[in-house]
Amino acid sequence: MSEPQFKHFPQLRQKLFVVVFGTETRAGKLFDIILLWAIVLSVLSVMLESVKEFRETYDTIFFVSEWLFTILFTVEYLLRIFITAQPKKYIFSFFGIVDLLATLPTYLTLFMVGGSYLVVIRSLRLLRIFRILKLGRYLREASVLSNALAASRYKIFVFLGAVFTLAMIMGTLMYMIEGGESGFTSIPRSIYWAIVTITTVGYGDIAPQTVLGQAFASMLMLMGYAIIAVPTGIVTSEIAQAEKNQRKTESSGKECVACGKKGHDHDAIFCKNCSAKL
Amino acid sequence: MSEPQFKHFPQLRQKLFVVVFGTETRAGKLFDIILLWAIVLSVLSVMLESVKEFRETYDTIFFVSEWLFTILFTVEYLLRIFITAQPKKYIFSFFGIVDLLATLPTYLTLFMVGGSYLVVIRSLRLLRIFRILKLGRYLREASVLSNALAASRYKIFVFLGAVFTLAMIMGTLMYMIEGGESGFTSIPRSIYWAIVTITTVGYGDIAPQTVLGQAFASMLMLMGYAIIAVPTGIVTSEIAQAEKNQRKTESSGKECVACGKKGHDHDAIFCKNCSAKL
Amino acid sequence: MSEPQFKHFPQLRQKLFVVVFGTETRAGKLFDIILLWAIVLSVLSVMLESVKEFRETYDTIFFVSEWLFTILFTVEYLLRIFITAQPKKYIFSFFGIVDLLATLPTYLTLFMVGGSYLVVIRSLRLLRIFRILKLGRYLREASVLSNALAASRYKIFVFLGAVFTLAMIMGTLMYMIEGGESGFTSIPRSIYWAIVTITTVGYGDIAPQTVLGQAFASMLMLMGYAIIAVPTGIVTSEIAQAEKNQRKTESSGKECVACGKKGHDHDAIFCKNCSAKL
Amino acid sequence: MSEPQFKHFPQLRQKLFVVVFGTETRAGKLFDIILLWAIVLSVLSVMLESVKEFRETYDTIFFVSEWLFTILFTVEYLLRIFITAQPKKYIFSFFGIVDLLATLPTYLTLFMVGGSYLVVIRSLRLLRIFRILKLGRYLREASVLSNALAASRYKIFVFLGAVFTLAMIMGTLMYMIEGGESGFTSIPRSIYWAIVTITTVGYGDIAPQTVLGQAFASMLMLMGYAIIAVPTGIVTSEIAQAEKNQRKTESSGKECVACGKKGHDHDAIFCKNCSAKL
Repeated sequence: MSEPQFKHFPQLRQKLFVVVFGTETRAGKLFDIILLWAIVLSVLSVMLESVKEFRETYDTIFFVSEWLFTILFTVEYLLRIFITAQPKKYIFSFFGIVDLLATLPTYLTLFMVGGSYLVVIRSLRLLRIFRILKLGRYLREASVLSNALAASRYKIFVFLGAVFTLAMIMGTLMYMIEGGESGFTSIPRSIYWAIVTITTVGYGDIAPQTVLGQAFASMLMLMGYAIIAVPTGIVTSEIAQAEKNQRKTESSGKECVACGKKGHDHDAIFCKNCSAKL
Repeated sequence: MSEPQFKHFPQLRQKLFVVVFGTETRAGKLFDIILLWAIVLSVLSVMLESVKEFRETYDTIFFVSEWLFTILFTVEYLLRIFITAQPKKYIFSFFGIVDLLATLPTYLTLFMVGGSYLVVIRSLRLLRIFRILKLGRYLREASVLSNALAASRYKIFVFLGAVFTLAMIMGTLMYMIEGGESGFTSIPRSIYWAIVTITTVGYGDIAPQTVLGQAFASMLMLMGYAIIAVPTGIVTSEIAQAEKNQRKTESSGKECVACGKKGHDHDAIFCKNCSAKL
Repeated sequence: MSEPQFKHFPQLRQKLFVVVFGTETRAGKLFDIILLWAIVLSVLSVMLESVKEFRETYDTIFFVSEWLFTILFTVEYLLRIFITAQPKKYIFSFFGIVDLLATLPTYLTLFMVGGSYLVVIRSLRLLRIFRILKLGRYLREASVLSNALAASRYKIFVFLGAVFTLAMIMGTLMYMIEGGESGFTSIPRSIYWAIVTITTVGYGDIAPQTVLGQAFASMLMLMGYAIIAVPTGIVTSEIAQAEKNQRKTESSGKECVACGKKGHDHDAIFCKNCSAKL
Repeated sequence: MSEPQFKHFPQLRQKLFVVVFGTETRAGKLFDIILLWAIVLSVLSVMLESVKEFRETYDTIFFVSEWLFTILFTVEYLLRIFITAQPKKYIFSFFGIVDLLATLPTYLTLFMVGGSYLVVIRSLRLLRIFRILKLGRYLREASVLSNALAASRYKIFVFLGAVFTLAMIMGTLMYMIEGGESGFTSIPRSIYWAIVTITTVGYGDIAPQTVLGQAFASMLMLMGYAIIAVPTGIVTSEIAQAEKNQRKTESSGKECVACGKKGHDHDAIFCKNCSAKL
């Protein structure tokens, strides 16, 4: 990250910028590690507070730690706004919004009851963890994965639409066949059952009782069983493609000495860009 | 779609044809969007009507909206027949039958009870949504998927036959081992259980209780676990093949005029085999 | 199938052989179709007999049909032995044993109670169905599938061994953590639970209740979720390989005119077998 | 395995070394097979002892067999230490620790209750089985699998992190929507439910009851259904790559001496690029 130019307090802000946003210096790494632990601990405390036994016994500890973490994150948020050259860009960025949402819920509890659970939005901040893992590998792998998913988003859209249409039709059929006795009390609930079945989750809170219903359910299961192959096939094919492309880009051995173009096939004899012999 | 030649009312019908069947003009797009919303709303109203609380409170609204949508779809259906040059072809096409089935159920409720649920067949009309999405991409992706599925239909037929035979044999064995106490009250019901298990749905409404039964069920689960790999493998392999073919077809224009070699990358300017300009 | 040479009644046996074992003549096809329906009906009657309501109402019909089918299959079995040139080879072949097992159970019911359910072994005879489907395609696809499975049998053996070891260790751990209250009453039962969980079947008849147990179960589920990728990957890779090999064998276009060797790569310029120019 | 040089009792230790650690001689194979059966029987006896009915009836048999196996394994462990040239290396190796843990639990039962179940760690020793199966194939397959898994460990790490974050956020949301009545009594428990749902295990011990909860759960299921494609895609792609590499390595000797082109098929006699004899 290139260090920006500031108008006010240029030296202080530049120093803080390196610590807060950077990850290369020792102080920057330390800041990130402390922040990471604060995030993990604050999320853990929210979780444990929801367990009745803990809430009743350690009431004060949860209250104090909650406010400590909130003040810490507020200070961090204000600091980030202060030291950035373009505060607006940061405030409306993904992490800017996450940082704000991580502090707001506790203040809201002063005015309303029940808002404290929003604190879990802090868990999104755990995504910062990848910033520390500067080993390169992780980012490389994540980019292969997200490229593959992005490339297959149209196919997955078509696929999910087809699955949902199937669930809607089968759910309504089962509502007509089974009726309310077996738990199929309404069409939305039957569609819920159909999705539970197609995705092979199978809670069993709603299950067909009649012979005809079980026959239809069996058909739906076999369809779901065959259907699950489709997204897998899509993503597998895209991942294989994404990896192939990356490998091609990386294979610098076959570089044209004339025009510098990389990524030739292994059996290429002439450069496909300038026709020079490889 | 090329505009057809009509005998009667040629001008009116041609104008309407462009609006009703076409998607390129502004009026055609508007017609499709209104129709789409009418379909979504009518399907939603059928679903919500099946929920007891809604049915009791908003009885009149559901009744009125049902007849409004039915009349709208009837008008649309008759319009389509009127403006098509070959009405028979449309009536017996997939969407022609769907359009008829989308209006009939409500009229049937005048004569018989319970027919109203057939209205959900309207959800099939949601497939029209892909007509609006004229971005090309969606149709292209859907064709890759359906080609892959069509190419693997024989393998999937063989596969489902094998799974069903396995379910039949294991279901009967479990019926003999477990007996009626654990829910295995008949062979069809035991086969239903075997399918629930092989497909890894696992409702738990029927579950083995004896040690021998649980051992057999474990075996069946591990088999199902290994078997699920087969359709995935089939479809993955076909999708990869279908994509490869499409890519090849798309770049088939890039043939070297000098040596005739095909299959060049899209960014190739010179033939990689003989260095001639492409 | 070449028609064999018989010692006794050569003409009669040869004629019958063409009808019973062959599928090319009209009589042979008819025989197979009648046999197929008899198998389907006899299996169906065994299934329906196991349903209490049917058994009580149609007691006599089931009894009569059972003996009719048994006598029919006995006649067919004896006929096959009579008309085969090598009776021993048939008797000890896969279908010979299936044919015998399909008739024995009913006779056993004369001497013992409960043997009637073995009649379901008849369902194995449904495999004969593939003999009629002489379209070639089905057999070709089945051979690709079975080749792929055969090629990956060592990997799947290693894989199932690893899964079972994991289930054994996790099952014992859960037995120690949960104890008998949540249904983990013994180690074999806990291993059964572990297999139900790893394979993502999840009946829910046994489920962890303690926090520690649920944490361990979550770990096991995520492992199972990642593990399911392994057999899929193995089979997919083998199917892709099997199809590639078959395609190579079939692609007769690139045949060397000098030595007749097929299966050259598309970019090959010289025959890899005899160095002649392709 | 090269036979080591010993200081004390060189001849005796060398002879024993060949029997205990080796698998090539007849005595070495016999030792391994006896050891294997002892492990299987001791693990089986621990399992059966946990079943209440067996424990009450065969109390003495379990007690005696337990001590017999423990003494046998203790002798084996000491023997291994005695005959190894580098005892420390063995003691701190994977199998050294497993061998120790396989004997300790029984001795611990003299002092504490419940330790006896740790004896199941003995099952890990079954991994020794691969030492006997010196057919080469199994080890080769296992190495392909472990290479593929090792190559995809970064991607799977990123993937599991994403799944866990999703489970955390959705679990908390469901805790807020459903509340304690449907079993969502705390956030950790709701996260447990989310993992049960994403992985498509679906016990059904906790299931949403409200309409909003079921809608969210349906979304989570469809996400889980699409997500399961990701590890499969990763592993499939890696396995395909690992197999390709192995095949390449195996045929890497086939390099054309004239033009240096590699990657010829195994049945190639002439270079496909320059027609020189390979």
